[in-house]
Amino acid sequence: MTDNASMRRPDLAGVQEAAAKMAQILPPTPLLPVEHEGRKFWIKAECLQPVGAFKIRGAWHRLSALSQAERQRGVVAVSSGNHAQGVAWAARRLGMAATIVMPSDAPAIKVARTRELGAQVIFYDRMNEDREAIATALAAERGAAYVHAFADPWVIEGQGSAGIEIAAQLGRQPARILVCCGGGGLTAGLALACPDSEVVPVEPEGWDDVCRSIESGRIERVSDSPPPTACDALQTFATGAINFEVISRRCAFGLRVSEAEVAHAQRFAFSRLRLVLEPGGAVALAAALAGKAQLDDATVVIATGGNVDPQSFARIVAGH
Amino acid sequence: MTDNASMRRPDLAGVQEAAAKMAQILPPTPLLPVEHEGRKFWIKAECLQPVGAFKIRGAWHRLSALSQAERQRGVVAVSSGNHAQGVAWAARRLGMAATIVMPSDAPAIKVARTRELGAQVIFYDRMNEDREAIATALAAERGAAYVHAFADPWVIEGQGSAGIEIAAQLGRQPARILVCCGGGGLTAGLALACPDSEVVPVEPEGWDDVCRSIESGRIERVSDSPPPTACDALQTFATGAINFEVISRRCAFGLRVSEAEVAHAQRFAFSRLRLVLEPGGAVALAAALAGKAQLDDATVVIATGGNVDPQSFARIVAGH
Repeated sequence: MTDNASMRRPDLAGVQEAAAKMAQILPPTPLLPVEHEGRKFWIKAECLQPVGAFKIRGAWHRLSALSQAERQRGVVAVSSGNHAQGVAWAARRLGMAATIVMPSDAPAIKVARTRELGAQVIFYDRMNEDREAIATALAAERGAAYVHAFADPWVIEGQGSAGIEIAAQLGRQPARILVCCGGGGLTAGLALACPDSEVVPVEPEGWDDVCRSIESGRIERVSDSPPPTACDALQTFATGAINFEVISRRCAFGLRVSEAEVAHAQRFAFSRLRLVLEPGGAVALAAALAGKAQLDDATVVIATGGNVDPQSFARIVAGH
Repeated sequence: MTDNASMRRPDLAGVQEAAAKMAQILPPTPLLPVEHEGRKFWIKAECLQPVGAFKIRGAWHRLSALSQAERQRGVVAVSSGNHAQGVAWAARRLGMAATIVMPSDAPAIKVARTRELGAQVIFYDRMNEDREAIATALAAERGAAYVHAFADPWVIEGQGSAGIEIAAQLGRQPARILVCCGGGGLTAGLALACPDSEVVPVEPEGWDDVCRSIESGRIERVSDSPPPTACDALQTFATGAINFEVISRRCAFGLRVSEAEVAHAQRFAFSRLRLVLEPGGAVALAAALAGKAQLDDATVVIATGGNVDPQSFARIVAGH
């Protein structure tokens, strides 16, 4: 982590500004009613964003806040693929050059889409190289803006704009929000956006650094040899200080789901919701379906992303 | 076809009433922006209805118009699966018994879902038995309401409610609507709902009875040995007189798509829209992607349904 100690704190006013900016360029993503075993709840379908993930929000709020001079020097980001596409999408719209540092094992579909959006892709080894160091060096070399995937006040506020939409769509802040959690950008953003809601981050087993951080009261890291997970989008080693400041204050607990529970949620989304979810975009739904959280019509489950390689998805839905 | 000559004609006022009734029970389905090869158009995602298809609209408008005495005698319908689920869903909500006559080769997922919604399922042989005769005999025997899948004024008006939603979502009637067409219930409904729009029915090759009917000016039938198609939802042999009365007046032409174009559209929906579409729900998108229609931001493509067996879908998205 390379948190900037002098960084401003994200706040509700910033989230509201981000929501107003999003409303100028894109319609709200649908809030879909779901019935499951007699209980009704809501899915916020962020997988239906143009880049297939909520990441477009934070990227837009951040890049659109840059000056013309800053925009001309381009942007650098690190991402396994969804933040990459969000940044590339926003950069293209603003006429900016984008360079994305991606893990060499990122899903092929995410690499291809990032390039399609006009970004330059540079690979790194997820387990052995320091991606932050690579990216910040690149940014410094080019004088480019470095947009962190989650530990950035604009990114947090931007992701939070989903919460403003939810409250408008429901006519009130929901009682609880279950949210897929990697670095904690969306979790912190929603916590700011909906101060009356219980915000519950959900992580894959073994990648539960945010759960453990909430439990211990300080930022914990994923172990040095975490288990394999299909949730490429959630493979972050630790949340940021700027995220944890919000999460520790607003989240009472987090939830963990197994790989099998995630696959089941992807199949449910396929057959019952007709939505394509990637593993990391299905963990909140997985927790809901596994009975790990209260479900009612004041509960919103965020389906964060749907960028998944066709062969992987075919294996999941065919059940082998 | 067993059109009732004394049947009332569907009209715009009926469509508007249906739309008001739908708004009481369900949110509008999303109208999603799509960019493809530099052109922007809209997808009306009817696959996101609770039963995964637009058929819920006509079924609700029809069954909710029945008297209490009529409701007690139940409902009978014929369907390969989507109208079945629409009728079963509406019947359950109204406390009615539903019996659905389904082809023996209907997708397993559609049969299972229809039963889950509480309906009794009776099978028939699609190519050799007269499904209308079976169903009308059943309805007569039980004194039940028979709800035709498309040749019914309430069903047409109900399906048309999608057009009222589209006009509200766009802020105007679209210049053109591409619509997946089986019997022509949705096509006729949209033509009534949006009198200023060009409404273009799209059919699978060889199942192009509506295209040919528009061309010849009279109701044409599918040949006695039509080609195989993955589009189970669109295997109707001829449109109804009540449908054709509207379609012949309002539709200048129809479009045909190949099975390969349909599979490509399903893959596009999977990877670009993160939507699950069944083959019959993807034909309008297939025509759009194949360059068979003008695409612009006044064009709406209806994605009619997303009920597809997992194994079939896995084969399609994996590209074999």
